[in-house]
Amino acid sequence: MKEEVKGNDCRMMKDMLDNLRAGMPLVHNITNYVTVNDVANVLLACGGSPIMSDDEDDVEDITSICGGLNINIGTLNKRTIPSMFKAGKKANELGHIVLLDPVGAGASHLRTETANKLMKEIKFDAVRGNVSEVKTLFSGSGTTKGVDADEMDAVTEKTLDQSVEFVKAFAAEKKCVIAVTGAIDLVSDGERCYVIRNGRPEMSRITGTGCQLSALMTAFLVANPDSRLDAAAAAVCAMGFAGQVAYGNMKTGDGNATYRNRIIDAICNMTGDELEAGADYEIR
Amino acid sequence: MKEEVKGNDCRMMKDMLDNLRAGMPLVHNITNYVTVNDVANVLLACGGSPIMSDDEDDVEDITSICGGLNINIGTLNKRTIPSMFKAGKKANELGHIVLLDPVGAGASHLRTETANKLMKEIKFDAVRGNVSEVKTLFSGSGTTKGVDADEMDAVTEKTLDQSVEFVKAFAAEKKCVIAVTGAIDLVSDGERCYVIRNGRPEMSRITGTGCQLSALMTAFLVANPDSRLDAAAAAVCAMGFAGQVAYGNMKTGDGNATYRNRIIDAICNMTGDELEAGADYEIR
Amino acid sequence: MKEEVKGNDCRMMKDMLDNLRAGMPLVHNITNYVTVNDVANVLLACGGSPIMSDDEDDVEDITSICGGLNINIGTLNKRTIPSMFKAGKKANELGHIVLLDPVGAGASHLRTETANKLMKEIKFDAVRGNVSEVKTLFSGSGTTKGVDADEMDAVTEKTLDQSVEFVKAFAAEKKCVIAVTGAIDLVSDGERCYVIRNGRPEMSRITGTGCQLSALMTAFLVANPDSRLDAAAAAVCAMGFAGQVAYGNMKTGDGNATYRNRIIDAICNMTGDELEAGADYEIR
Repeated sequence: MKEEVKGNDCRMMKDMLDNLRAGMPLVHNITNYVTVNDVANVLLACGGSPIMSDDEDDVEDITSICGGLNINIGTLNKRTIPSMFKAGKKANELGHIVLLDPVGAGASHLRTETANKLMKEIKFDAVRGNVSEVKTLFSGSGTTKGVDADEMDAVTEKTLDQSVEFVKAFAAEKKCVIAVTGAIDLVSDGERCYVIRNGRPEMSRITGTGCQLSALMTAFLVANPDSRLDAAAAAVCAMGFAGQVAYGNMKTGDGNATYRNRIIDAICNMTGDELEAGADYEIR
Repeated sequence: MKEEVKGNDCRMMKDMLDNLRAGMPLVHNITNYVTVNDVANVLLACGGSPIMSDDEDDVEDITSICGGLNINIGTLNKRTIPSMFKAGKKANELGHIVLLDPVGAGASHLRTETANKLMKEIKFDAVRGNVSEVKTLFSGSGTTKGVDADEMDAVTEKTLDQSVEFVKAFAAEKKCVIAVTGAIDLVSDGERCYVIRNGRPEMSRITGTGCQLSALMTAFLVANPDSRLDAAAAAVCAMGFAGQVAYGNMKTGDGNATYRNRIIDAICNMTGDELEAGADYEIR
Repeated sequence: MKEEVKGNDCRMMKDMLDNLRAGMPLVHNITNYVTVNDVANVLLACGGSPIMSDDEDDVEDITSICGGLNINIGTLNKRTIPSMFKAGKKANELGHIVLLDPVGAGASHLRTETANKLMKEIKFDAVRGNVSEVKTLFSGSGTTKGVDADEMDAVTEKTLDQSVEFVKAFAAEKKCVIAVTGAIDLVSDGERCYVIRNGRPEMSRITGTGCQLSALMTAFLVANPDSRLDAAAAAVCAMGFAGQVAYGNMKTGDGNATYRNRIIDAICNMTGDELEAGADYEIR
């Protein structure tokens, strides 16, 4: 946390998390079956409440009783693609928060095309992905090697300036919050861009930290609808800071499975004051 | 455990669990993909053996080699609804134990209608849900706000008498064991009603404790077919007591992810004597 | 590890794991939704990278960017059966490693027939299952009682000689590595047979150790394509040894849920030298 850039907002992160704990938002998730349990538990950990529903005939009812919708295209399949559109349109109609996690966009035609079509037909409040996925959405195609970001795309201190410009420009074009997460995280609404340096490299050895963050971000947005950029940035800081706290709690013999649990535990125990003190960001 | 109401049955809970450990029942689960791994591990923890199968062409074969069938409508989808009916009918035909967990009944038309239709066409030995879900089954419709019980439905000390009457009446009508779980748990076969006060409020911050309990209850019922009410009540006491034991094992930094593991661990390590001593119930 | 049979290969196990950590192979998994999260985390733990994809229109793209394909028929359903064939054929065409885990073959017609058909139409580099599943593949039918091996099929010291002959003969016939895992594990390419005595009986009280091993084996094979038998055996030793290390790390109150995490943790922390020293096998 850099004092000089925070100014009057010095309780912002705290407020975002406190609002989330107070609001207990229901979040509807259409998500992959790999990390779905962790997504549910991290939503409970942050003070939200998860509902999973992916049948075309179920999603409109379910999304109607929620405050936000988290669409994640991991393990994308044709049975649930129409559900994503139906739920997204219903959520748009109701003015609910809608977030897209374009898992693996760029790695297959089905994922790239579905993500592009979702971006066209649904009004998203936020998109969260790794840099390769987000670049795929921007250009309409990609060559992602799997579900992790390509090395050549990585946001580093060296490429930071141009990455910030890219994220800002894309957010401005799409009129939504764009969050590109990796070693350095960028979150922009088109005007400001949070540059966030929370997190630990070991988080990449756990499946689903990205999926969890997308769910968490949806919950933060639902609880803070009038401060979307700050809310999204607070989610990114919270997840990264949880990774740091959890790493500090690791003991001899612990590995990635235990680390996974400790990160969710850290979200569960995190107070607004701790997040405020632990958040490591600047605004550009 | 209230001595005065237990009388000659003072080893009942112990017997139920010992029979389960000895019988190692196979339980067929058609269940949601959110908590399925925990359901499998809790069945292994209690001494049972889990099989998951949900394809229309697979379920009859699989349920035939099992002792019980646990139908859970979380993440309900049209691909597996016919499988639920096929498996349920086959299990009925073979005289196997069949249990329904109506996750989210009342929250969507698809779930409410499917649960109602299952109740009509399948003979269930037990139904386990939260109070909103069970009230939905009773009335045929509902207004559940998600997959958690509505506050106005909650079983409290104040509403206990009428809640006991409701559960007894519904169990008598359906001729099966009805288990309504929450802060206070009620389990009735229409004549007697267990009022159970095991458990911890923190259990509601973990996804899947209800799903796990339904699987556990199926296993208890398979192992104790001639004492269905007691078996179902023993499952509820075991799950709640495991929540208490696990809570006692929590250390600084632990949160809901670790708590989830510790509850399954507590089931794994629980002896019949410990359950007997830890069960906190009265019979009305 | 028996010195007398290892001869010049005394760093073989170490080399296999070191190659895996260096190669970071991408593994495409079409697998069941029960244990999929553990499969992903164990792949990350060993140094590989998991991708899950099961839609007919997605699997060819995804498998093309991977080095290996792990097909697991747990929770088999008709939506993903064509995906298994498409992905398998594409992987064959590209010369990728392909492994079959015939979960529950013998327990239902759908599983037995699908496994048999996969064996006919796809060229597998390795098959890993329990003895009942592998015997079902061999004979074309079976009477497996669930997803665990039948007791009468078990590989014991008493039946070891004939079991080794069976596995060797089946591997020779199928021209692939056959791994039959249980209390004693047998891994053969038709000429040599590893007899492995790593592991702990408590591993059978966790769901998914078999599924995890199949994924791990795929990663070992991708990283060591010219030493397939040794690579497959190294995977089996690594999983079993992880079970022993994890068991040594268990504390009072820990049960099967924590054991599950500690096994993945042990894979995460295992060095080549530790595996070399811990591997307990002979070659026949």
